[in-house]
Amino acid sequence: MTKSYAVSLADVQEAAKRISGHAHVTPVMTCGTLDDIASAGAATPRKLFFKCENLQKVGAFKFRGAYNAISQIPEDQRWKGVVTQSSGNHAQAVALTCKLLGIKATIVMPHTAPKAKVNGVIGYGGKIVHCEPTKESRDQTAQKIVDETGAIFIHPFENPHVMAGQGTLMLELLTQTQSLGTQLDAAIVPCGGGGMLSGTAVAGKGIQKDLKVFGAEPENVDDCKRSFKRGVKLLQHEASGKTIADGLMTVIGEPNWEVIRDYVDDVFSVTEEQIVEAMRLVWERMKVIIEPSAAVGVAVALFNEDFKKLEVENVGIVFTGGNLDLGVPLPWVSRL
Amino acid sequence: MTKSYAVSLADVQEAAKRISGHAHVTPVMTCGTLDDIASAGAATPRKLFFKCENLQKVGAFKFRGAYNAISQIPEDQRWKGVVTQSSGNHAQAVALTCKLLGIKATIVMPHTAPKAKVNGVIGYGGKIVHCEPTKESRDQTAQKIVDETGAIFIHPFENPHVMAGQGTLMLELLTQTQSLGTQLDAAIVPCGGGGMLSGTAVAGKGIQKDLKVFGAEPENVDDCKRSFKRGVKLLQHEASGKTIADGLMTVIGEPNWEVIRDYVDDVFSVTEEQIVEAMRLVWERMKVIIEPSAAVGVAVALFNEDFKKLEVENVGIVFTGGNLDLGVPLPWVSRL
Repeated sequence: MTKSYAVSLADVQEAAKRISGHAHVTPVMTCGTLDDIASAGAATPRKLFFKCENLQKVGAFKFRGAYNAISQIPEDQRWKGVVTQSSGNHAQAVALTCKLLGIKATIVMPHTAPKAKVNGVIGYGGKIVHCEPTKESRDQTAQKIVDETGAIFIHPFENPHVMAGQGTLMLELLTQTQSLGTQLDAAIVPCGGGGMLSGTAVAGKGIQKDLKVFGAEPENVDDCKRSFKRGVKLLQHEASGKTIADGLMTVIGEPNWEVIRDYVDDVFSVTEEQIVEAMRLVWERMKVIIEPSAAVGVAVALFNEDFKKLEVENVGIVFTGGNLDLGVPLPWVSRL
Repeated sequence: MTKSYAVSLADVQEAAKRISGHAHVTPVMTCGTLDDIASAGAATPRKLFFKCENLQKVGAFKFRGAYNAISQIPEDQRWKGVVTQSSGNHAQAVALTCKLLGIKATIVMPHTAPKAKVNGVIGYGGKIVHCEPTKESRDQTAQKIVDETGAIFIHPFENPHVMAGQGTLMLELLTQTQSLGTQLDAAIVPCGGGGMLSGTAVAGKGIQKDLKVFGAEPENVDDCKRSFKRGVKLLQHEASGKTIADGLMTVIGEPNWEVIRDYVDDVFSVTEEQIVEAMRLVWERMKVIIEPSAAVGVAVALFNEDFKKLEVENVGIVFTGGNLDLGVPLPWVSRL
């Protein structure tokens, strides 16, 4: 009972105060058409509440964690600068936070990162150092910069302040749905490294004990689901795969796993086709732009057969981000 | 001073009551990046307030006018059904309104109408009759249906109830910006047939006498601007041209023109390139989907040299709709 985790409800509440006035309180949207699709063949009718972190600063929830972590660096340490490694949205979040706080930011990015995300980092004044799209290359390149410059490393999901920052979106979501007269039965949270899933699970369960918190992953990179099912975290080499949901290709972190194992109710996965279809439906019917990673939670609610069996009516779903290359054919066009 | 127009502030206020609970009160969004672009080289810094009618029912402001008009058909006349002609969004609006009210809807559409708009009409249970993409063909086809079936014709912009319904968005915009602590100096409203421009001009000036109301048009179909400059409405044969802004290809209507002439402060036009660039910026930076016609007002604020010279700070802009084929290359891709 006294087990301690990397993040607590109090940490998330402190983070909420810290980011207040800096991060947006993003809106919650609903859509009758998507409710109908989610309700079809489901154990109970569904009402979906979408937390629009695609409308967050830098176009993704990552700004919450980055700001919460970096704003805690003491004034007399800030000259050292900050370094991080990220496939994209965390990179932009760190770059913007550093710009706002007057700190030098160096970002290690795989050379495969989407152009929109690379341009975002450059636009916020971040310095980019390219690496290979592997965990080893990312870690080594970042470590080398830390060693050479003394910069402070901000891990994209294992940093406890990052986890707490991401958790703040759940506090808002619960307050916002309540002000709409609704109590959520469940929340679906996409999982890459598990920063958001761990932070939101602790926050959600802390505020509302009976809230079900579910992870969502692409089938192709379902390391969180497989870890959850067997109760032991997958090792790095056991998890690999490609997905259109480029933000979720990461294997879950160690401190994240401990929280997920004990706080999360279940993890569901969806196919690439389901992700693309969910994304298309959101664009067409809701007129908001979400990136593929952000469609994974929606896809679970709309299409996952195991999820359909659950007796949950009001379901919160995180639109995690809206950054993608708009200069290339859309996925439902290029895949036809 | 006693000159009477097709629409008055009282009509718009009545319409607002009539559509309340049926149409969405759409959100108002802001975007720092677009403010910066609009401010660059401008006489005063700009703050833009976007009225998101792309998030309205049927994905466009047209639902307001259609609902206001059709809901006023007496119960004992409704069996006759409704007929209209429209390039798209008014068609969907009439189809959905009729579905909600249990009225048969027949829609005359040019065979060139975007697939997304055609599918919308079908989805709402409307019956489509195709015609040529000319005013003559549209009018004749619709008239034939009226003659043969006795159906009630709802003109997409010359109907006074439609004009009043569209005007309701201005009442909301002024209230919403005021609750944000802002008083608008001006509003930019795209102009096709002029239903929205006339309704919003009457509503805006009625509520706030010193509000500047500006029309926005593609250069390629600038019949409203040319009419406004010479003070006499262009004849049908004087106005023609093609534009990516398919919702604005219509020549302004007669009752609309009388209002525009006397209530509107000026009309600005933008090039096809400016429309596409404005649309791309909104998608990329605001993460919301607008159709090309909806980008015309934004393009004026961002790029029009004459508009740059104006001393207006807080500017409302209508995102008129978000319906376009997502199954084809995006315009900034296909035009490269």
